[in-house]
Amino acid sequence: MSLKLYYAPGACSFIPHTLLETTGAPFEPMLVKLHKNEQQLDAFKAVNPRAQVPVLVDGEAVVTQILAIITYLDAKFPEQQFLPKEPLARARAMETLAWLNNTVHPTFTHFFMPFKFAETPEGQADIKAHAAKVYPGLMAELDAIAQKALAKGPFLGGERFGPLDAYALTVLRWGGFAKVDPAQFKTLWAHVQKVAELPAVKRAMERERLELNLYKA
Amino acid sequence: MSLKLYYAPGACSFIPHTLLETTGAPFEPMLVKLHKNEQQLDAFKAVNPRAQVPVLVDGEAVVTQILAIITYLDAKFPEQQFLPKEPLARARAMETLAWLNNTVHPTFTHFFMPFKFAETPEGQADIKAHAAKVYPGLMAELDAIAQKALAKGPFLGGERFGPLDAYALTVLRWGGFAKVDPAQFKTLWAHVQKVAELPAVKRAMERERLELNLYKA
Repeated sequence: MSLKLYYAPGACSFIPHTLLETTGAPFEPMLVKLHKNEQQLDAFKAVNPRAQVPVLVDGEAVVTQILAIITYLDAKFPEQQFLPKEPLARARAMETLAWLNNTVHPTFTHFFMPFKFAETPEGQADIKAHAAKVYPGLMAELDAIAQKALAKGPFLGGERFGPLDAYALTVLRWGGFAKVDPAQFKTLWAHVQKVAELPAVKRAMERERLELNLYKA
Repeated sequence: MSLKLYYAPGACSFIPHTLLETTGAPFEPMLVKLHKNEQQLDAFKAVNPRAQVPVLVDGEAVVTQILAIITYLDAKFPEQQFLPKEPLARARAMETLAWLNNTVHPTFTHFFMPFKFAETPEGQADIKAHAAKVYPGLMAELDAIAQKALAKGPFLGGERFGPLDAYALTVLRWGGFAKVDPAQFKTLWAHVQKVAELPAVKRAMERERLELNLYKA
């Protein structure tokens, strides 16, 4: 077995995790316990010096960064059509993936790990509160993107399950930690619940022991 | 002329700006003055509701997000080889582009526009100071990436000038604002100076009226 995925339960490694499960190809899931700081162990930093999941290992190749792993898996498993082939549709998918990756995802990191961005307890509390205020607006924007996409096809990227669906599930799920009720984003929440029932996604959720709805009123 | 690029001098729109200049294709440069808040004007928000540059318009197609615009231009101008074709090399390029886009670029935004992330003056000052501390380490990491890449070819992505070179120039240049002397990153600085002399890059710098070295001791 030459494919390995380093992942942490509930982290953004969930996205390549679901893609790999979708392919049906054998891969070795490598658990990295972030709550035990295992990403800082020398053994893991030898794989990824940035001490982050996900990491995809394919024989000699080591690929980090969600968008790079998606690009790699799209090329390795062309029959899955993880990304559209047609240039404008492909750019559209990248546009939303990049926004999720450089805007939505970091906003959650501001909420969840404010100590990465400021040093005083007051500064960190300020960052956390600000991110919690911004997050619902981003989910509303994602809901609008979902409405537009799902008017055209069953998945966010078109006819097939792909990285946009898995990323949308992940960030909406994270919202629960920030007291953002997913049910208020009707289209997005209905879609994410449907995605969670796909056999491949279900297998990834079971391995990671994920609850879909983390929101507590 | 069907191609238009909305750009702001010195912003990350510099990356597609240099790529378009490299193609030799005619395009209409659309200046957006961020210091006059023109990105918030209704006319611009009708083009990009997120009120951000860059925006590439190609006939009916409107593409935002650096990584999406790069993907689109790579497909539209295949002879330029802006991204490698071979899957692992392509993933490698995306890996560094994604890191620049989700880590380096936001760190500079924390320094330059801390009001986007916190509400109190103290919180914003904390964010700004923290980002200024982190930035040199990121430039050192980029310098190491440059050393590795330039041992193999004349540009960061291989044989041809491409988005990695333009992004590297942009973030190293930004460092000057944060009192990071580019000259301390010898390989990266030498490369960026060389890139700034390419005729296409020179044309983009002249249109944007950019000084390469913003560092003042």
